[in-house]
Amino acid sequence: MSAMDGLSYVSPVEIEKKSFEIISEELGEHNFNPTEELVVKRVIHATADFDYATLMSFTDHAIEAGIAALQKGATVVCDTTMVAAGINKRVLESFGGEVRCFIADPDVAAEARDRDVTRSAVAMERATSLSGPLVFAIGNAPTALVRLIRMIEHDVIAAPALVIGVPVGFVNVVESKELAIAAPVESIVSRGRKGGSTVAAAIVNALLYQASGGRREAR
Amino acid sequence: MSAMDGLSYVSPVEIEKKSFEIISEELGEHNFNPTEELVVKRVIHATADFDYATLMSFTDHAIEAGIAALQKGATVVCDTTMVAAGINKRVLESFGGEVRCFIADPDVAAEARDRDVTRSAVAMERATSLSGPLVFAIGNAPTALVRLIRMIEHDVIAAPALVIGVPVGFVNVVESKELAIAAPVESIVSRGRKGGSTVAAAIVNALLYQASGGRREAR
Repeated sequence: MSAMDGLSYVSPVEIEKKSFEIISEELGEHNFNPTEELVVKRVIHATADFDYATLMSFTDHAIEAGIAALQKGATVVCDTTMVAAGINKRVLESFGGEVRCFIADPDVAAEARDRDVTRSAVAMERATSLSGPLVFAIGNAPTALVRLIRMIEHDVIAAPALVIGVPVGFVNVVESKELAIAAPVESIVSRGRKGGSTVAAAIVNALLYQASGGRREAR
Repeated sequence: MSAMDGLSYVSPVEIEKKSFEIISEELGEHNFNPTEELVVKRVIHATADFDYATLMSFTDHAIEAGIAALQKGATVVCDTTMVAAGINKRVLESFGGEVRCFIADPDVAAEARDRDVTRSAVAMERATSLSGPLVFAIGNAPTALVRLIRMIEHDVIAAPALVIGVPVGFVNVVESKELAIAAPVESIVSRGRKGGSTVAAAIVNALLYQASGGRREAR
């Protein structure tokens, strides 16, 4: 902010640098490897919630699989437009990738009503029409995560490169994430009730910034 | 989710109803009035973080001012496209209101670079061109909240109907919110570091649902 704003002046670039220094200091000891640590720190940066240092769960090759897919121009399938809005399109598109979100499609809403399921679940089924490497980013609806995992288990859809499963809430959320962790697919999950669109977008962006060798757009 | 998904079946409408029952039970005693309580519960619904029960701060007439403005077709000015994406447009537009977000305007980015301030701060200045009742929803950038408050204090912009100030982070975030609480404007703030786009959108939606008499779109 400018001097006239009266608070200690910090430039845009310095704000993020200083933020991550504070996060590193308060995070202290942990068992994440360096690439996982970058993801966890960006989630904490997006939430100011250090609980994620204990909640975040990564399968063995989740991050390398996600980064490789993004570098190949993967399509990032989001459960909500909020997640899609939070993803750094400039970096994603620099690899030839794009964001897709089917939740707002009129036919998705109609089918969800007819079947009395969530629009989020039906939207995941629409992803079977996509080709090329896929990264799923689910930050809102446990029904979307469960539907995706069941489609993978039943070979309705080929296992994507990575499933980011961070729905938030109180009904079937914890269970949906444990299903994801146990499924035959690389996953990044926030155990428990916590998560959300900002967490999902932060994870995608953390992978994008690693994929681009640490290049970072100013915020 | 459907029976084949294997978890206990809960219909979309039941998911939210059951979620709020759990939130009410775990929230327990509090000092919020009934309209504030609806806002706090929707924030907890969006974050699964009960810290907000102690962090949320409301000026005396914040909620009635926000609801009245939304019922008059207020423009909701957001600091990020994520906040804009999370707002229930169907309900907002049913009152004749709309969402505006200037952050992605090319001239905003250019001016921010020239002045070495954040795009968020410059985007707030663009709101001076808007007419009619305004509700600001700031979920990301403390620089946006501080710039807005300073513009109000210096009569650069007329005091809006409501300022929702829930930026998240580690640098100047706490201070920006205390500035907002002390400013001559109705405000809803999450004290401390926590907040975010999902929190800002949840607050706007909680006001929209109260403005529409509790009507609620299925998710």
